[in-house]
Amino acid sequence: MEITVERAAELLAGWDKVLVLSHGSPDGDTLGSATALMRGLTSLGKQVAFRCADPVGKKYEYLFQGINQSTETEGFHVVTVDVADPKLLGSLQESFGGITELAIDHHGTHIPFGKEEWVEPKSASTCQMIFRLLLEMNVKIDVPAAECLYTGIATDTGCFRYGVASPDSHRAAAELIALGADAAKINRLMFETKTMACMEVERTVLKEMKFYHDNRVALISIPKALVEETGAEESELEGLPSIPRSIEGVRIGITLKEKEGGVWKASVRTNPPVDASAICKEFGGGGHTGAAGCTLGTEYDAAVEKLIAVCRKELERSGGR
Amino acid sequence: MEITVERAAELLAGWDKVLVLSHGSPDGDTLGSATALMRGLTSLGKQVAFRCADPVGKKYEYLFQGINQSTETEGFHVVTVDVADPKLLGSLQESFGGITELAIDHHGTHIPFGKEEWVEPKSASTCQMIFRLLLEMNVKIDVPAAECLYTGIATDTGCFRYGVASPDSHRAAAELIALGADAAKINRLMFETKTMACMEVERTVLKEMKFYHDNRVALISIPKALVEETGAEESELEGLPSIPRSIEGVRIGITLKEKEGGVWKASVRTNPPVDASAICKEFGGGGHTGAAGCTLGTEYDAAVEKLIAVCRKELERSGGR
Repeated sequence: MEITVERAAELLAGWDKVLVLSHGSPDGDTLGSATALMRGLTSLGKQVAFRCADPVGKKYEYLFQGINQSTETEGFHVVTVDVADPKLLGSLQESFGGITELAIDHHGTHIPFGKEEWVEPKSASTCQMIFRLLLEMNVKIDVPAAECLYTGIATDTGCFRYGVASPDSHRAAAELIALGADAAKINRLMFETKTMACMEVERTVLKEMKFYHDNRVALISIPKALVEETGAEESELEGLPSIPRSIEGVRIGITLKEKEGGVWKASVRTNPPVDASAICKEFGGGGHTGAAGCTLGTEYDAAVEKLIAVCRKELERSGGR
Repeated sequence: MEITVERAAELLAGWDKVLVLSHGSPDGDTLGSATALMRGLTSLGKQVAFRCADPVGKKYEYLFQGINQSTETEGFHVVTVDVADPKLLGSLQESFGGITELAIDHHGTHIPFGKEEWVEPKSASTCQMIFRLLLEMNVKIDVPAAECLYTGIATDTGCFRYGVASPDSHRAAAELIALGADAAKINRLMFETKTMACMEVERTVLKEMKFYHDNRVALISIPKALVEETGAEESELEGLPSIPRSIEGVRIGITLKEKEGGVWKASVRTNPPVDASAICKEFGGGGHTGAAGCTLGTEYDAAVEKLIAVCRKELERSGGR
């Protein structure tokens, strides 16, 4: 059932114990949403707990500081934040996918799975929705909560660089900074600091960057062995997929990453008029116009060949060349 | 004489011909301010002209599109935007430094030189001031003017990354996007687009990056031959010196660039508590605590050796290790 912010606030007000779930490979928006929501619920005297199928990156640890989590989750009401598809719960899907009582999400591609669903595809981030929800619940937003919310807004908009950064994103950021969020500190952590391991991966990957279709397509590959060799964490490499698209003239920037079992995943970023989700749909994936993803199987060379062919098709269809 | 936005609006309302001056080595804020002001004045039926001591970079050309400039400037009232010091007018200082009737600026270091001066050091950008000024003058802000204003706000705040990005910066951005500014397009131009030549230089330079003193010092070198080979322009390589310092744990990031006659120049960026200017002073250079420069002579190996020794001394003095 689709609901509004008022009903979501009403539901949460009626629950004393809430388990918040983030999507796997957690990013700033799903974690900022979860931690801000937990802080708000705690301030209202409720018990909270958190689960995520994958480990939380070290750079996101500050989001959780000072949150008092319950160790058991018996009888907790299950809420998901920023989870577009129950599959994205990863290993948690089996236990919790079927008993989610409230799903809060901003993805246009959201697949309903919660008993009640508050989904706003026009929102640039789930954190903007959580901000409104907390205000609706009359939560007094303290500095740590403001910083959690700012984190998700900043990360999902590429620090306000992308087209999704709406007037509402900026208005929310203005209010959160006024509430005391140290935006500069958060942005340094999120966008400016590279670990040595990440820099090692980056220089190897750039050295091997490939170009196709008159430099309209740029592709980098991140083999598992390279990541292991450098000791880089998953979350440290989040910035890499933005590199190929940033080159002048490139319409499609592709990042191939080798996952468990030698499976290659593609992260596709495009510049207008090219549609990244149209490319990824051909491989059973999806996403937004400017950023999408898909899984390609274990054969690297075959995967690249097929992907580059689909890119040509999309370049022609969209008039991007 | 120090004045307010109301008086600045009154002054401009009384003038039919206005010459707007930007500072030399013009950036997004001085050019965004000048072009937005010219658009506003033109919409009120006034004649406008523009001068800058240095050429306007290609990436800023869109700011000027469609502005109808007067060729002669006889009898024009002179207004400067974002000029903190008359010296920064460069070659224009002699002709116009003494006859500036209105100086509009946001720098805390502003040195008064105009007949009337509207200076707001708390504003993150001069464009935020021009936005208020145009509203005060009842200018209907069209899409091109909104894009000029957004450009300056975005560039002077590092696309909202730095601490100067205030609630007011975000509120102004929200309004300008609502007025139709294509923020994503502008940000792509300002922050995301690397030329192919720049990317070539970057990947070669990163491959050869060197670390010293337990990775507290990172050094990249840009030989003249590499720049020539790729065809990169000077202005395309402005972002490179920020790379070495952005690596976790690095206190001193050094960029060596080979200039005319084989002379090597160092650009030194440091993280607190290390003082970049203390390092560069040893070689007769100077600058700020976080960013400084010096000239090192033609012998690369000897220059690096001496520079790295001075870095060790500064690391020890400052307690940066």
